[in-house]
Amino acid sequence: MKIICIKTELNNAINIALKAVPGKTTMDILECMVIKASADKIQIIANDLELGIETSITGQVEEEGEICVKAKMFSEIIRKLPSDEIKIFTEENMLHIVCGKAKFSIPVQSTEEFPFLPEVMKEKKIIISQYTLRNMIQKTVFSISDNENNKIMTGELLEINGSKISLSSLDGHRISIKNENLKEEYDHIRVIVPGKTLIEVSKILTGNVDDPVNLFFTDKHILFEFENTIILSRLIEGKYYQIENMISKDYETKITINRREMLESIERTTLLLKESDKKPVLFDIKDSEMVFSLHSDFGNMDEEMDIEKEGKDILIGFNPRLMMDALRAIENETINIFFVNQKAPCFIRDENESYIYIIMPININAN
Amino acid sequence: MKIICIKTELNNAINIALKAVPGKTTMDILECMVIKASADKIQIIANDLELGIETSITGQVEEEGEICVKAKMFSEIIRKLPSDEIKIFTEENMLHIVCGKAKFSIPVQSTEEFPFLPEVMKEKKIIISQYTLRNMIQKTVFSISDNENNKIMTGELLEINGSKISLSSLDGHRISIKNENLKEEYDHIRVIVPGKTLIEVSKILTGNVDDPVNLFFTDKHILFEFENTIILSRLIEGKYYQIENMISKDYETKITINRREMLESIERTTLLLKESDKKPVLFDIKDSEMVFSLHSDFGNMDEEMDIEKEGKDILIGFNPRLMMDALRAIENETINIFFVNQKAPCFIRDENESYIYIIMPININAN
Repeated sequence: MKIICIKTELNNAINIALKAVPGKTTMDILECMVIKASADKIQIIANDLELGIETSITGQVEEEGEICVKAKMFSEIIRKLPSDEIKIFTEENMLHIVCGKAKFSIPVQSTEEFPFLPEVMKEKKIIISQYTLRNMIQKTVFSISDNENNKIMTGELLEINGSKISLSSLDGHRISIKNENLKEEYDHIRVIVPGKTLIEVSKILTGNVDDPVNLFFTDKHILFEFENTIILSRLIEGKYYQIENMISKDYETKITINRREMLESIERTTLLLKESDKKPVLFDIKDSEMVFSLHSDFGNMDEEMDIEKEGKDILIGFNPRLMMDALRAIENETINIFFVNQKAPCFIRDENESYIYIIMPININAN
Repeated sequence: MKIICIKTELNNAINIALKAVPGKTTMDILECMVIKASADKIQIIANDLELGIETSITGQVEEEGEICVKAKMFSEIIRKLPSDEIKIFTEENMLHIVCGKAKFSIPVQSTEEFPFLPEVMKEKKIIISQYTLRNMIQKTVFSISDNENNKIMTGELLEINGSKISLSSLDGHRISIKNENLKEEYDHIRVIVPGKTLIEVSKILTGNVDDPVNLFFTDKHILFEFENTIILSRLIEGKYYQIENMISKDYETKITINRREMLESIERTTLLLKESDKKPVLFDIKDSEMVFSLHSDFGNMDEEMDIEKEGKDILIGFNPRLMMDALRAIENETINIFFVNQKAPCFIRDENESYIYIIMPININAN
């Protein structure tokens, strides 16, 4: 193999592929990335067996070939090279990297044992804007569970109905749902995508409204295709929770409140909590006022906020961290929160339900 | 105690005093800071018994008094308050903090057991610009030793001779010296200041050329006085090394080289090292060229650089991290490096010796 390419392009490609290199693994070969030079392109490939990434750059291929190289070391060397034109070639089981007056040589491995991405039949293409997909991920992925014992909760439900796409997650204490509209109508899809995949995808997407991502599905995989990159991820097998049955429109109390002020006030209550503390922040809603308060071993805090209220007064307690996650994910200046009673979850949603956040209360009588 | 003050001012004062609150301690009282309100000012005081800080702000003192409060919790609350005017008062062993609609109350302790700073006789004032002092610290403090078994090496030698001030540190592998001129002549001073003190002082100083710091010395203490702040630190007892005897003007080889290019090249060699690796980077100086090279278990690297040379060719090896520390501390575009032989330290210094960095080589024949 012998190639000449541009540092910034190679560096970008490596950074994309690195997302599929596991931090820890017992399989040495997964710590590697493949450089594959063929007539018309140079590919960088990584795969942690759940998530695989192939991305390519253009360059001058003087000799075709493919090799495996330790991903982390290779990426650090490329990032630190002194100028823009890089020559890379193999000789005697070493990869030589020459840039300006700097020369590196590092060992290579054969690609024989590397798990290349399987070929996937690209049927039924779904097109979505990079901005929309990234935004949907960012506004829901925080409420997946990190408990691997319940594999389904570590993923998100991706559902497409006609021209409506929705992404949902839940962890037993809360549910986050983000709904968007697609430009076309599609056949029904309902799959569970690993949260880790979505997090890495959201980091790689440029987030431009006008840049599209193509999505393809098989029984076991989801494929994201955009620009020079494809990301192939396993789906999580199993049946996701019937979230639609958990959503109710009934309420006894509705409040309208400034989102940022509420977020900052709840952030202040957490100053009196340790990481492991499970003390609730109390919402005392009376007439046109809500008082947040928190009592812990470190002290007491309370703060009043003006609200608009419909319905009954209510006193209810929440884990402040769950409430903050939802408030941070919303962009609207004012929000509506719906309550039923002290023991039922509250709903935060806008009128057309572009987002729905459902949060379970903490039993304040038990404290 | 009852005071009204401005959030940003109080926050700044707390951040200064926090530098003297120990991260870990078995003495509860040291985790506190004192708020002391007297007729004309509000003081914030902290002391970890080695380093003590007193700083003050103006404000409205409605009732004089002094209390101890947990420093970390207090600072986090003040930082997160919603608006600018803060009321602080004690009532029933609690400190009440009221700002806008937010109210906090946290426990207080009496100041009885708090180690207030001792009164220090302010004789023989030495005046230095904040910029100069901070710069001297930053350019030498990295080569103190972190090994507490040799207490003297954890400090820096501060020496004043006439109008010359110098700060020096050494850790057994290298020496860093920074010399500056004062505006006036002073009596001779030679003391060892704890490195930790200097690091904290350099963080608090504004670094303005026109803002002065007053230094005072006792047998056991150094006092830094500037603006509304005094920092009192114990000195390290003992006799510092005779650094002046370690400096030589003799050399066999002198090179002139671009500092930034050399630094970047040596940074690249470290990509092939693990944190614990002790492999040297080789300097092969021949005619008007120097080749850096490094061989490790991860691969090989070499890079040529143009130099100007006087004297003999030489092949010598250094710990790349020590070389990088010195190169990062120097601001000049080109530097001179002086070598004697493979086993003798090299000197990096400018013509008027405003800085001197001495680095021991690694024995390359032993590898």
